[in-house]
Amino acid sequence: MDDPKPWLALARAPGLHAGRLDPSVDPLALAGESRTALAALGFSEAVIAALRHPDAGSIAADERWLAGTGRRLVTWGAPDYPPLLAGIPDPPLVLFVEGDSAALSLPQLAIVGSRNPTALGRDTGEQFARHLAAAGLAITSGLALGIDAAAHRGALAAGGRTVAVMGCGLDTVYPREHVALAREIVADGALVSDLPTGTPPLKQHFPRRNRIISGLSLGTLVVEAALQSGSLITARLAAEQGREVFAIPGSIHNPMARGCHRLIRQGAKLVETADDIFAELGALLDGLRAQAQTEATGIATVSGPALDKDYEILLDALGFAPASIDTLVARTSLAADVVASMLLILELDGRVAQQPGGLYCRRLAGK
Amino acid sequence: MDDPKPWLALARAPGLHAGRLDPSVDPLALAGESRTALAALGFSEAVIAALRHPDAGSIAADERWLAGTGRRLVTWGAPDYPPLLAGIPDPPLVLFVEGDSAALSLPQLAIVGSRNPTALGRDTGEQFARHLAAAGLAITSGLALGIDAAAHRGALAAGGRTVAVMGCGLDTVYPREHVALAREIVADGALVSDLPTGTPPLKQHFPRRNRIISGLSLGTLVVEAALQSGSLITARLAAEQGREVFAIPGSIHNPMARGCHRLIRQGAKLVETADDIFAELGALLDGLRAQAQTEATGIATVSGPALDKDYEILLDALGFAPASIDTLVARTSLAADVVASMLLILELDGRVAQQPGGLYCRRLAGK
Repeated sequence: MDDPKPWLALARAPGLHAGRLDPSVDPLALAGESRTALAALGFSEAVIAALRHPDAGSIAADERWLAGTGRRLVTWGAPDYPPLLAGIPDPPLVLFVEGDSAALSLPQLAIVGSRNPTALGRDTGEQFARHLAAAGLAITSGLALGIDAAAHRGALAAGGRTVAVMGCGLDTVYPREHVALAREIVADGALVSDLPTGTPPLKQHFPRRNRIISGLSLGTLVVEAALQSGSLITARLAAEQGREVFAIPGSIHNPMARGCHRLIRQGAKLVETADDIFAELGALLDGLRAQAQTEATGIATVSGPALDKDYEILLDALGFAPASIDTLVARTSLAADVVASMLLILELDGRVAQQPGGLYCRRLAGK
Repeated sequence: MDDPKPWLALARAPGLHAGRLDPSVDPLALAGESRTALAALGFSEAVIAALRHPDAGSIAADERWLAGTGRRLVTWGAPDYPPLLAGIPDPPLVLFVEGDSAALSLPQLAIVGSRNPTALGRDTGEQFARHLAAAGLAITSGLALGIDAAAHRGALAAGGRTVAVMGCGLDTVYPREHVALAREIVADGALVSDLPTGTPPLKQHFPRRNRIISGLSLGTLVVEAALQSGSLITARLAAEQGREVFAIPGSIHNPMARGCHRLIRQGAKLVETADDIFAELGALLDGLRAQAQTEATGIATVSGPALDKDYEILLDALGFAPASIDTLVARTSLAADVVASMLLILELDGRVAQQPGGLYCRRLAGK
């Protein structure tokens, strides 16, 4: 990246997101606009001040944080900006990331729920995360106590990928109990926030954090939640973003099942097993592929060089479920070493991803 | 009633019901029709034989049974034929009734479920029946072991009305364990069957019994049911009859919740409290609901007199799905022998119940 300072200024403009900008507007050009021009765009005094007179001290603090190992900014419009997040009504202009920023673009499921679940609810969350991560889905959550932590831990235990979206700047780990867990997540996935350094974990930040959790994900699974749980906000945001909402039912005598039951009444898919989730997401992945093909034929987008015919055959053979090299050799009649080197190229090209267990899967179109 | 013999002959015509007859046809006139005329109406040889040559010995047995106290026939088209049952596609021409036949025409809810429920499921069924009966709904079920019996008992405990529909002739009580319960039901409601005396409780009679359970009722509530449960047949029949279907969700780790979850996926209303049922039954029951609010505040939750702290910890660890002693030891860090003796005390105290497989589950307080 060139100088991050203009992006860091954008990150500190309160409430500003890509949904507020006309697609023709270059966000970086905003800083050069006059007060009058910015006011004409409908920005508040606070946003105008932040754009025209950024706080040099705060931005220097962001830059010091970014200088640390494994840290980077992912910015609106950049090739590594997660495509599902780009599709929500209010995408962040800037994401602070620690760990592997590519994890943000993996097909992923959000698993959220109560900070104070029953023991069985915690086990259930961890088991679902473990099973889904082993099958190749990244698991996204909010690093909170309870179900969130169980979800991250389940994904890590399966050797899978996991993404934690924070409601504070990444120079803080909240809650403090999860400092060690956060380090593990950085090693096998990513911490992410749209909040700049020095931002404390205030309660009012959690809805904006939640929209990133649901927005990165194909769907959101609520494991246990009381009627007042913040996870119901995440579920509502997922529904508003057009994503799937899944909920696990429970005993009517368990107050932590009440939120899930409300979601099911409102149309969330009732989930008893991980297969219930795969059944829904399979259709969704197919739908995204069809949409991508329609868009590719309708608009002359440049989504990478055209593929060699053998590569097309290999991708078709891969389909939309994880497959091993042996399986692909059987399906294509190509030699094993040829398939392996083609997969490496496709992986570098962002078209396939390797998963635990030596399996390969496609990545979402346009990635 | 005039001579019951022609109706008793109709009751013994296999598979004949009011849905098979043109509304203009007087069922009693069928016996006088010629063989050819009956064949032209599409009746089978067995039906024609039963109508033209009724078995005098069997009918005499029915008449002897009817001569007993509190027994009567309720016949198609009579003023006391239950109006909701008359609205199903295949209403019985004859109902054998013992007890108060007027109970059949009360606004009623069917409560059905597994013959082998969890202890908490049984308690839940009884509590719902108690609360709904106290609010003025009659409770209809099938006198089977498990949830059915709990439903009848709950209604009786509330001083309410209850109707038991049998899959055999009323000269038999099946299962034998419920002879005393059947006597209580006769005193405060009714036993009913469309099967004549001497008919054994064969498995193939249960679907036709189930259509009467759902057909008498405004809706059917399934409390706990495995995927193979006959109560799912009752629920399907209720839906086909245009009646409401209600199901109580449960832990995904409880096999007795699977049938209820299937029903919810298929569109059954998810029920957590009796108010959810009142809300659906709506205007029909506004008066009853007002009465309910004065008589009870809600279905009991799991609570009771204060417990010692370690017991609270153990109950919290037990949660709301069956768990083994090993699981509870892992969750509480208490020693296994301590957990075992605490469970024994909680069992004697009616707060937990032991299940097959050495699993323990919570019960509703005060049971």
